[in-house]
Amino acid sequence: NIALLTTIHDGCRYVSKAAAKPQVEFDYDGPSMKTTVPGPRSKELMKQLGQIQNTGAINFFCNYEESKGNYLVDVDGNRMLDIYTQISSIPIGYNHPALLKVMANPNNLSTFVNRPALGILPPENFPDKITESLLSVAPSGMTRVQTMSCGACSNENAYKAIFIWYRNKERGQNTPTNEELNTSMINQAPGCPELSILSFMGGFHGRTLGCLATTHSKAIHKLDIPSFDWPVAPFPRLQYPLDEFTRENAEEEARCLEEVEDLIVKWRQKGKPVAGIVIEPIQAEGGDNHASPDFFRRLRNIARKHGCAFHVDEVQTGGGGTGKFWAHEHWGMDDPADIVSFSKKLLSGGYYHKDELQPDKPYRIFNTWMGDPSKNLFLSEVLNVIRRENLLEEVTRSGKALLNGLYELQAQYPSILSRARGQGTFCAIDAFDDATRDRILLKARDKGVLLGGCGDRSIRFRPALVFKEYHVNLFLNIFNDVLAQHK
Amino acid sequence: NIALLTTIHDGCRYVSKAAAKPQVEFDYDGPSMKTTVPGPRSKELMKQLGQIQNTGAINFFCNYEESKGNYLVDVDGNRMLDIYTQISSIPIGYNHPALLKVMANPNNLSTFVNRPALGILPPENFPDKITESLLSVAPSGMTRVQTMSCGACSNENAYKAIFIWYRNKERGQNTPTNEELNTSMINQAPGCPELSILSFMGGFHGRTLGCLATTHSKAIHKLDIPSFDWPVAPFPRLQYPLDEFTRENAEEEARCLEEVEDLIVKWRQKGKPVAGIVIEPIQAEGGDNHASPDFFRRLRNIARKHGCAFHVDEVQTGGGGTGKFWAHEHWGMDDPADIVSFSKKLLSGGYYHKDELQPDKPYRIFNTWMGDPSKNLFLSEVLNVIRRENLLEEVTRSGKALLNGLYELQAQYPSILSRARGQGTFCAIDAFDDATRDRILLKARDKGVLLGGCGDRSIRFRPALVFKEYHVNLFLNIFNDVLAQHK
Repeated sequence: NIALLTTIHDGCRYVSKAAAKPQVEFDYDGPSMKTTVPGPRSKELMKQLGQIQNTGAINFFCNYEESKGNYLVDVDGNRMLDIYTQISSIPIGYNHPALLKVMANPNNLSTFVNRPALGILPPENFPDKITESLLSVAPSGMTRVQTMSCGACSNENAYKAIFIWYRNKERGQNTPTNEELNTSMINQAPGCPELSILSFMGGFHGRTLGCLATTHSKAIHKLDIPSFDWPVAPFPRLQYPLDEFTRENAEEEARCLEEVEDLIVKWRQKGKPVAGIVIEPIQAEGGDNHASPDFFRRLRNIARKHGCAFHVDEVQTGGGGTGKFWAHEHWGMDDPADIVSFSKKLLSGGYYHKDELQPDKPYRIFNTWMGDPSKNLFLSEVLNVIRRENLLEEVTRSGKALLNGLYELQAQYPSILSRARGQGTFCAIDAFDDATRDRILLKARDKGVLLGGCGDRSIRFRPALVFKEYHVNLFLNIFNDVLAQHK
Repeated sequence: NIALLTTIHDGCRYVSKAAAKPQVEFDYDGPSMKTTVPGPRSKELMKQLGQIQNTGAINFFCNYEESKGNYLVDVDGNRMLDIYTQISSIPIGYNHPALLKVMANPNNLSTFVNRPALGILPPENFPDKITESLLSVAPSGMTRVQTMSCGACSNENAYKAIFIWYRNKERGQNTPTNEELNTSMINQAPGCPELSILSFMGGFHGRTLGCLATTHSKAIHKLDIPSFDWPVAPFPRLQYPLDEFTRENAEEEARCLEEVEDLIVKWRQKGKPVAGIVIEPIQAEGGDNHASPDFFRRLRNIARKHGCAFHVDEVQTGGGGTGKFWAHEHWGMDDPADIVSFSKKLLSGGYYHKDELQPDKPYRIFNTWMGDPSKNLFLSEVLNVIRRENLLEEVTRSGKALLNGLYELQAQYPSILSRARGQGTFCAIDAFDDATRDRILLKARDKGVLLGGCGDRSIRFRPALVFKEYHVNLFLNIFNDVLAQHK
């Protein structure tokens, strides 16, 4: 199979491991590049769209009809191995036959055509559909789930559920006072209390105003937007590989946890008690920063000790990329969280929560759509495919190959690469600096590999769950070429 | 035709006007009730869903497959004339053939199956599709539009665009200082400045934390959620019918406008300048409160005078229900707003804005999905139907019949009904008190008419755009029966 790989790619000088042919039947054989990217047609469309929107973030325009499996095809006929998957939101590749079949089923038509107000008039199959989709993968200890349209709305509403829970706890059996009801209408305490959510430097939880107050990954996301005076704790800055720096990393984690407790006390004294703690199992947008299971277990205990809800944001980590369906499963806890939010690979936003986090009254957590049942139809099928094809095991296998390949490459190119890290295929590696990182991303793209950046100078790997060892080796070959040519 | 109507409904004692047979070919003939609502099957499902979510707001469960045109069918086989349309979000009725056709077109499949990250990798047809859909109905003076997943996200991002615009104006040619960049990361000024959005008592702009700071319709929406110290102006409390109280209403509007200016000055002095003013053309959730075109013109001038962006929230009013595509068109202005947000009947959230409200850099307004192109496909067809069938004229015609009918009913039942008001079919009427209102809503539902409440004691009418005079008369007959039987 090495021979096969090298015939596909001239100039391959690196194959970390032989691999079987791809099992992904609806996949292409490999990348195929016709132009540099963006090509002429993309540039034309960019000009057209520039009349309507800021196009500064647009990479290129896509031909989604022709895209298949792990390959994204652009409007200039370039076919790229996609290891970024729409910011980690395509679970089982492009145009998966199982999903196309959902569309072909006439019983499903009305779910697409008549979007309901789920909170008041759900469709007959709604309880069954969320039971067979979202609840079949519910985090440990949670039997309740609330769908939302996107990740930001999910976190916004999760925070609201936390605030409502916290105040109800303080209020005990008492009903809200008239003063509370009246002051809430004009944004003032006690009706709108000065509660806070503790978040972590480098964290990303969305960009709407509530979420943005807990997001601290890049200044450009936050500049000029009013915010809340909420505490921000340091997230551990670990050294990689984790098992070579156990002692140092444990010290760093202890330092951060101590700071968390200090902040909780300080904010309570300030009159802005911490109602909840929000954290990603792996900080993604902020640079793929990991912490140990021990860190999360201790943090969860701190939350419990101080009466704060523990909110695990799995918007980017959820859905299988780490080799488990939820990244928090790696912590090995029966009671990992009070609330777990999701979106992206789950195709619909939402959050799971423990019973006590359910609002005491209707309409406290509410909006017109409350999600989109047509996305749940697709999710059911995605979960079927994951189970049928043992994709979590496949991800674990591909992830090992990927991480080992990255270790070898950083050993081979120490002046360019460092800090390879990952769980499953949810991997990352750092470039020397941001300019180097950006240059590598563009070079790789022109050679047919689509990657994303995160943090200051990291490259993040976010392939679909159908990214096999075969694709890992294809990628490593191309990446090796890029690095070899890098001046 | 009166004869026809009375044979359809036994016991009809009231027909305001003869009407032609319905032109809606995919419609049913009239309501048909088998059980009280919710029926036994709905109750069963409610119990099932109660294990998963708070079901306190659920009316009943629906059979969307069997629903057609103006009629919503429930899981117990009850068929209701739907004058609430999923909180005003079904534009052209259930299972419209034009929308089913979108699903049958194989070229559209991949748009549903592969949801892109629109801000970085849009599909080839994206510029064309938003040009033929959203831009073909752009408000006067606006050529730019940003899609979002839902109404709340639309307003959140519109506010962000306003804050960014405002600070860039203050900053002039200067780039942000390091102090600004650094403080923004920890939620502090000057990076996260203390800017504000002025909103109106009774307004509703969504329930995420930024939006919620401008929402003031019901305490239960706001209680226990931290908020911003932003100014809240009084919205005119007009007397209806408007043309009988011209002088009184003009005085009331002048009082409110004066208060707006006072608040702008006061908040500037407080160090929390008003960057934008947000308002609905008709306050919907807050009780269907109207104001005159003159009020809005003057308010828009106040915004201009004080350098505040003027944000018109058309999430509920947009899409044709008022007889014009945008309710603000009734103001007769060339430059009605700086930013106009939408969702619901537009099927996708988003906002239009003037050129200067476009952020100066990419990623300042951004999230993973940035809307959903499959919703734009449906919207294109909705707009085609609206044009082809002159639905805005039809709405104007049905709306007149509806409002006249409501006038007659309130004259006939002065102890129950008052303050009939409306624009197009976007009508409302007040009941004596909230208990009376709620009783009427339930009675009407059991007779096959689905209505919604708003404000303290109002009934709001939000039919689809295919609600014809025929349906108006059907409704008036049933409503008359309900009122006649009301004790």
